[in-house]
Amino acid sequence: MTITLYELGGKDGVRHCPFCWRTLMALHHKGFDDFLRVPVYYRDRTPIAFSRQKRVPVLVDGDRWINDSWEIADYLESTYPDRPTLFGSEIGRAQAEFVSAWIQGIRKPGLTEILLWDAFEHIDPEDRAWWRADREPRFGRLEDFRHGRDERTLAWRERLAPLRLVLSQKPFLAGPVPAYADYIVFGDFQWARCISTAELVPSDDPIYAWRERMLDLFDGIARRAPNEA
Amino acid sequence: MTITLYELGGKDGVRHCPFCWRTLMALHHKGFDDFLRVPVYYRDRTPIAFSRQKRVPVLVDGDRWINDSWEIADYLESTYPDRPTLFGSEIGRAQAEFVSAWIQGIRKPGLTEILLWDAFEHIDPEDRAWWRADREPRFGRLEDFRHGRDERTLAWRERLAPLRLVLSQKPFLAGPVPAYADYIVFGDFQWARCISTAELVPSDDPIYAWRERMLDLFDGIARRAPNEA
Repeated sequence: MTITLYELGGKDGVRHCPFCWRTLMALHHKGFDDFLRVPVYYRDRTPIAFSRQKRVPVLVDGDRWINDSWEIADYLESTYPDRPTLFGSEIGRAQAEFVSAWIQGIRKPGLTEILLWDAFEHIDPEDRAWWRADREPRFGRLEDFRHGRDERTLAWRERLAPLRLVLSQKPFLAGPVPAYADYIVFGDFQWARCISTAELVPSDDPIYAWRERMLDLFDGIARRAPNEA
Repeated sequence: MTITLYELGGKDGVRHCPFCWRTLMALHHKGFDDFLRVPVYYRDRTPIAFSRQKRVPVLVDGDRWINDSWEIADYLESTYPDRPTLFGSEIGRAQAEFVSAWIQGIRKPGLTEILLWDAFEHIDPEDRAWWRADREPRFGRLEDFRHGRDERTLAWRERLAPLRLVLSQKPFLAGPVPAYADYIVFGDFQWARCISTAELVPSDDPIYAWRERMLDLFDGIARRAPNEA
């Protein structure tokens, strides 16, 4: 069995894409820890040209390929049903989509604006012209996001209330052990951790303790990732 | 088998408590449609004195009683595992708590303020003095909520974004068929429907279509409930 994960490549080898982190954690959850990780850069998508689309993550498993983090999670769950479950049930799968919709709602707008300047600085230097031309029509001048990060972070932190409430009562969003819903939310936190010194949550926040538990999973794969913290 | 549900009683027999609606829908989901419904009023909790606490819903099943809508859902799921599942799996159970935490976050503050005056008007008249004395220290003068409902509703509607997103893609929060996560959210909508003419969502909103589907469930038990619509 040969698995390859194509993921976004950043400056100095840092892989910070939140959706790629969902897939990375899902692969480890399913017990895969020996797979190839191939960076794909904004300026050159030829490594994933075989998938006839331009977005990462893309997973190759033997002679099959799958793109889109949700499709990959479904593929792993249905192809390897005897390995630890990502969703628990069809209901769990559907409810994980709600978790994803929720985190999406506080990412755009929200975390994206907190991290926009940091993200620019962590784009591979050769990708920066592409990225600026792509992002500025949507967000305005990138330099305008160099300041105000702390205020934006404080406002964003309030919006984490439902996550905080459930994590004050149990170790993971999915219960006593983590599952895909945890990786969905963790992807955003890990994105921030890889590229920014922003203190998203204080150390006495139940979300902070949860993130520590997530960083410890799978022999600390996420903790060992290059980061700014 | 004799099941009795003790639920909040309101004016003219209207039962509007959102947590009691969670339990009502869960009972029907589990295939129970022949149970006794007993109203409990704020001013007199003696009907549930046996439970040694003062909150509804309380479920009596044969010689057992259970209070708290979560405890009741867990009881139904574990006692009747061969009937349709409320959670699907332990992961589904945990993630339903996230849905509950989310709706709680937009209820207080949020829907509660939209409905506060309507709620007062639908309290059983003999309960009103008790209710005013209980609520005004928390919310301020009830009469201040007679106006501004439409503006509050428009603001609240925006906060439904994650629910709207998932319901634009599938019929129920739990997938192709409803489960407890749906009843959690529906409880709040049914509370509003029973006591208020507020148009929470417009008819072209995917949430509106979902609510229609919920109202159709179980031979229209929720649609037939006395309401203000």
